[in-house]
Amino acid sequence: MAETTLLQPWEQIARFIDQEQTAELEAFLHDLPSGEMARAISRLDSEHWGRLLMLVSHEVAARVLDELTHAQAAEIIEDLPAEKAAAIIEEMPSDEQADLIAELDTDEADAIIEKLSPEERADVRLLSKYGKDTAGGLMITEYLAFTDDQRAEQVIQDLRRNADEYAAYDVQYVYVIAKDTHTLRGVVRLRDLVLAPHSKPVTEVMLPNPVTVVAEASLDELEEFFDKFQFFAAPVLDEHGRLIGVVRRAAVNEALGERSDKALMRLGGIIGGEELRTMSTSSRTIRRLAFLVPNILLNLVAVSVIASNEWVIEKVTALAIFLPILSDMSGCAGNQAVAVSMRELSLGLVKPQDAVRTLFKEITVGMFNGIVLGLLVGLIAWLMRGHEFGMIGVVIGLAMMINSIVAVCVGGCVPLLLKKLKFDPALASGPILTTCTDMCGFFLTILFARLIIIPYLPTVTPVG
Amino acid sequence: MAETTLLQPWEQIARFIDQEQTAELEAFLHDLPSGEMARAISRLDSEHWGRLLMLVSHEVAARVLDELTHAQAAEIIEDLPAEKAAAIIEEMPSDEQADLIAELDTDEADAIIEKLSPEERADVRLLSKYGKDTAGGLMITEYLAFTDDQRAEQVIQDLRRNADEYAAYDVQYVYVIAKDTHTLRGVVRLRDLVLAPHSKPVTEVMLPNPVTVVAEASLDELEEFFDKFQFFAAPVLDEHGRLIGVVRRAAVNEALGERSDKALMRLGGIIGGEELRTMSTSSRTIRRLAFLVPNILLNLVAVSVIASNEWVIEKVTALAIFLPILSDMSGCAGNQAVAVSMRELSLGLVKPQDAVRTLFKEITVGMFNGIVLGLLVGLIAWLMRGHEFGMIGVVIGLAMMINSIVAVCVGGCVPLLLKKLKFDPALASGPILTTCTDMCGFFLTILFARLIIIPYLPTVTPVG
Repeated sequence: MAETTLLQPWEQIARFIDQEQTAELEAFLHDLPSGEMARAISRLDSEHWGRLLMLVSHEVAARVLDELTHAQAAEIIEDLPAEKAAAIIEEMPSDEQADLIAELDTDEADAIIEKLSPEERADVRLLSKYGKDTAGGLMITEYLAFTDDQRAEQVIQDLRRNADEYAAYDVQYVYVIAKDTHTLRGVVRLRDLVLAPHSKPVTEVMLPNPVTVVAEASLDELEEFFDKFQFFAAPVLDEHGRLIGVVRRAAVNEALGERSDKALMRLGGIIGGEELRTMSTSSRTIRRLAFLVPNILLNLVAVSVIASNEWVIEKVTALAIFLPILSDMSGCAGNQAVAVSMRELSLGLVKPQDAVRTLFKEITVGMFNGIVLGLLVGLIAWLMRGHEFGMIGVVIGLAMMINSIVAVCVGGCVPLLLKKLKFDPALASGPILTTCTDMCGFFLTILFARLIIIPYLPTVTPVG
Repeated sequence: MAETTLLQPWEQIARFIDQEQTAELEAFLHDLPSGEMARAISRLDSEHWGRLLMLVSHEVAARVLDELTHAQAAEIIEDLPAEKAAAIIEEMPSDEQADLIAELDTDEADAIIEKLSPEERADVRLLSKYGKDTAGGLMITEYLAFTDDQRAEQVIQDLRRNADEYAAYDVQYVYVIAKDTHTLRGVVRLRDLVLAPHSKPVTEVMLPNPVTVVAEASLDELEEFFDKFQFFAAPVLDEHGRLIGVVRRAAVNEALGERSDKALMRLGGIIGGEELRTMSTSSRTIRRLAFLVPNILLNLVAVSVIASNEWVIEKVTALAIFLPILSDMSGCAGNQAVAVSMRELSLGLVKPQDAVRTLFKEITVGMFNGIVLGLLVGLIAWLMRGHEFGMIGVVIGLAMMINSIVAVCVGGCVPLLLKKLKFDPALASGPILTTCTDMCGFFLTILFARLIIIPYLPTVTPVG
């Protein structure tokens, strides 16, 4: 035992798998803090993944998958026989099922869906009919509904009889539907059921005309809904007003978190959803290049300003030192404005039509920052190369000053304009910003050098 | 009426305020979708903010503040008389109270706390005793507790009697505490209260030994807790095991969301918490400069490589065109690796000690990307300036290739190393990455130019 305590969790798991110690493995997984699970599993080699899931019970396997990201879980499930995969997926809540299946390739997804029990298959098909980030795609189909001809007593008796089965449902509300049409009539809160006389019809205990969401409701609409109403869950209706599921606040929060995580990734230039280092090198390489290669073209546009003025560099080679500083500092200043705009967009504080107002708000900040940065960078340029080119401090400082203002204005507005044009602000703001600020910064520097430095240079050899 | 429909929400609100139409204003605010509220309020001028809150009832004012970010709400509340501010804050749930007060300056916070009712004051003091992102700071003090000598019946009667008051508590659990010591003995779920015979003592209905959190539990510990246990809320105990509050899953999720939002802002170079464009220009300028000015120094380090080799630029001026491309492309490639590392850190998939493993994972991606980028950028360089400097394609391509590998390795590891050294990876990864990649890229380009181009240049004039 003294020896095993030195093992890392994934080594311990691998050892249990190799020795087929199912009970010990299940106990070990049960005790593993959930923060450790994802890391431990991602450290296991892929051959052990399959054997792990084949070894433990379907319930434990479902719990393991539930603690991983969808991308990770999909990777693992793809390697299992469809029948086994289906048996594990049956143990997951219906919204998790749909999310996981959505991450799989179509062929594998179809094979697994084929092997599900008829009800589960109908549920998964129902959820996948709706978009991933809609009420229909996020809902669970495990809910309690009673017809409107029942009494409080009957509901309580049913709850008591099926207490074990319902334990997994995490019941807070019970729904009342019309006996014939299955349209939603009302919602009963458990606390009201406590207080109601047992003989009352459920239609008198229920809150009539409950707030509901339509299956097509978008994630933004759901966020607004749960902001407005302090409920744990809301009933989801189809186009005929029939109850088809329940969307939980927790599922909406999770989807919102995922969406902002993905935006964070795209901001860093990772496209096509999540990238994990357990994924194959080829797909990771291709996805990264898909962002990098178009960026080369944008860079060419920016440096074309230098290329067409190479003779200026030849005369004032010191510019080659300061152009990269100008480029980087302007990019940073602009990115600050991008970050604020992205944040205000996600908070709903600005809308695409507010670009002009954002521009004015940024101009003031840009002017102050531009003066400070221009003075500092200009001073540095003068200290470094002032003995050679007396006016280089003025050229670089002036370019830095003006370009800072341009950078914050562009950075503040670009996310709003991209949003208006239905492009993804997280993915495209950075490259567009740096192309603009580089072009403008290079242009200003070369222009000022031509105006202030070159006319006063001692001419050694005449230039044609 | 036809005219008013053309007004923007904030114009409509301002008009109601100017005409002191309280009832219409309250109705308008009530109907405003919550997504619109934050934007409408931030568009009002600050003079109208104060008048708005003075005009409407304290309940409505509390709801308005609740829909804004804490930073926005704090800005508005600061302009009110302390007495009025206290009256509005009394209408907010205790965790929101503490969050809002934490955003205020100490003097203003103290003045407002003075004006609160004695119980509310004690609650706010209790919450502010604990850190903002701990169980004690996130908990609410509105919960239901009964002593262990009561029967189910008595609890149900109390619930029924105080139904109105408790409606705001969103009760899911009732807590049982020891009559004399006030230590927590158990938790009663409402659903169990439905099913229990009325004469049973609460000690027999309750779940004994409930899971609890200590008041000092950190946000990470709370996240893990709610990942592990499917509860809506957990009781918070002080060091003597006494029940002092309840921390809700929703409050933990909100705090986690806020924390990752702040990381997103720091990644963009916005420090010191949230920046909103409604804030004063001076504080926004100073906070932005605090990130930009140190960055100048890092830039100086990077360009020192060019500065000390200016004579190379003088001979091969075309390098001035390609150095900015190299700098930008390497920065982008490295930032992709930073994004993946930041994501894996937040998912718990990697820990600081995994830096070496991350390095190996990135080297393979870096080699493939480096070959593709090197070939492309090298080809472009040769097409643009190959007629002048035959080997420039090789120089730039080779530098790009090697520097891509360096960039992804540095980008993948820097967040882990910063985390290990207890620095903020979100704030510092970008500047450190670009300094490294710029230095290395400039060095490689100049080195290869000295080795492959300069020796074969036709010498027109001898250089000392």
